[in-house]
Amino acid sequence: MRVGVFDSGVGGLTVLKALRERFRRIDLVYLGDTARVPYGIRSAETVVRYALECAEFLKEKGVELLVVACNTASAYALETLRRELPFPVFGVIEPGVKRALELSRGKVGVIGTPATVRSGAYQEALSAAGLEVYAKACPLFVPLVEEGLTEGEIARKVVEHYLKELKEKRVDTLILGCTHYPLLKGVISDYMEGVSVVDSSEAVSESVRPFVKDEGNGETELYFTDFSQNLEQAVELILGRPVEPRLAKGVFSA
Amino acid sequence: MRVGVFDSGVGGLTVLKALRERFRRIDLVYLGDTARVPYGIRSAETVVRYALECAEFLKEKGVELLVVACNTASAYALETLRRELPFPVFGVIEPGVKRALELSRGKVGVIGTPATVRSGAYQEALSAAGLEVYAKACPLFVPLVEEGLTEGEIARKVVEHYLKELKEKRVDTLILGCTHYPLLKGVISDYMEGVSVVDSSEAVSESVRPFVKDEGNGETELYFTDFSQNLEQAVELILGRPVEPRLAKGVFSA
Repeated sequence: MRVGVFDSGVGGLTVLKALRERFRRIDLVYLGDTARVPYGIRSAETVVRYALECAEFLKEKGVELLVVACNTASAYALETLRRELPFPVFGVIEPGVKRALELSRGKVGVIGTPATVRSGAYQEALSAAGLEVYAKACPLFVPLVEEGLTEGEIARKVVEHYLKELKEKRVDTLILGCTHYPLLKGVISDYMEGVSVVDSSEAVSESVRPFVKDEGNGETELYFTDFSQNLEQAVELILGRPVEPRLAKGVFSA
Repeated sequence: MRVGVFDSGVGGLTVLKALRERFRRIDLVYLGDTARVPYGIRSAETVVRYALECAEFLKEKGVELLVVACNTASAYALETLRRELPFPVFGVIEPGVKRALELSRGKVGVIGTPATVRSGAYQEALSAAGLEVYAKACPLFVPLVEEGLTEGEIARKVVEHYLKELKEKRVDTLILGCTHYPLLKGVISDYMEGVSVVDSSEAVSESVRPFVKDEGNGETELYFTDFSQNLEQAVELILGRPVEPRLAKGVFSA
């Protein structure tokens, strides 16, 4: 079985890693849209178009199930992708919401990119389940992680800057609604003492389980729309082993 | 006369503003490639392709002179643009270097995006003139400015984080090699006490003077490849007056 995973950049490799740990034999095909990262600052229309092109690329690679590892694309493009594609499509938001419902005693915080928070996708699903929800966009978290500043004074100050409100609201559970954020989990957990932290990316590999037949050659192919600086190091850092990245060509517009 | 200006995003509007202050009657056409911003984290090949497409768009709009307001595009694509286009093309690097040569007593610091610093464009030009050069990439400055954190504790800590080395080297002049950085000029100048700060974007309007005939209708057209959040506010903030942004379509790949 061939399973496709796409994200705006390298962050979604954490989802690929979680899938591989659970399914040893499937073939995994990853697409990171590094030529157009980040998605979280773009318009809804543009995010949908980018997501469709990424899905088309993976369809041509023969995938039979698609995981949208990007929260922003999950928030805006999931319905369109499900309508347009002939195989099951999973986003990261539903699994994250499900996990939060299991953990929360009533007050949930959600953090993500500006586009994810603006979409209201997490807020709607959690409110519909009767929870009190507080959402906050944290635009500096992605660049902070990409710069490797995942601990230390700057990280602590930036985390405090964004999460102060949520702490004052006394949320009991916090959803990390962006694949980059788990890398700041240490600083976030320290600041949000006693709060349950939900990693949407982890939750998705549990959700796809009933749809995956663990058969195949156990191969992993990684494609990126641009070879930016440090790509190979980032891959090795996240996956824990080197996998050669390939250049994705063909179906991408601006 | 129609003059074109392009940048990866809204930052280049500071260049457009400087041009308008100097030339009242020319028609200005601006393109901000907001669907693919930021350029500073992409490969050289991708930056050149994006720059060619932006220039092609402005050529179709009838411009007779082009200012590349983006430092990263200036560093990688200027030669190609000059070869491919039938009118004069100016980047922001040469004017910034020229101004630094006038001000420096021997030791210059250069800050910019990872791609601009990696290109070595500033360093080569300054070294060739016999100056001692220290360059430093500051990837967090652009997101910091876009988040409006241009003063306060986080801005001061991040500025210290990146500029500590340059301060220890005792540079006497510092080139702000990115159109976003002038918005952090207050914090940067405070930290780099006594150092002359050069804004490349300002310097370019002086350089084009001999090539511009100040005739036309004094019109300003702004195009963007994506309408992201807060675009109209950002335009008004930088230009000091509202100008309606238009959507650029047609020649853009990924």
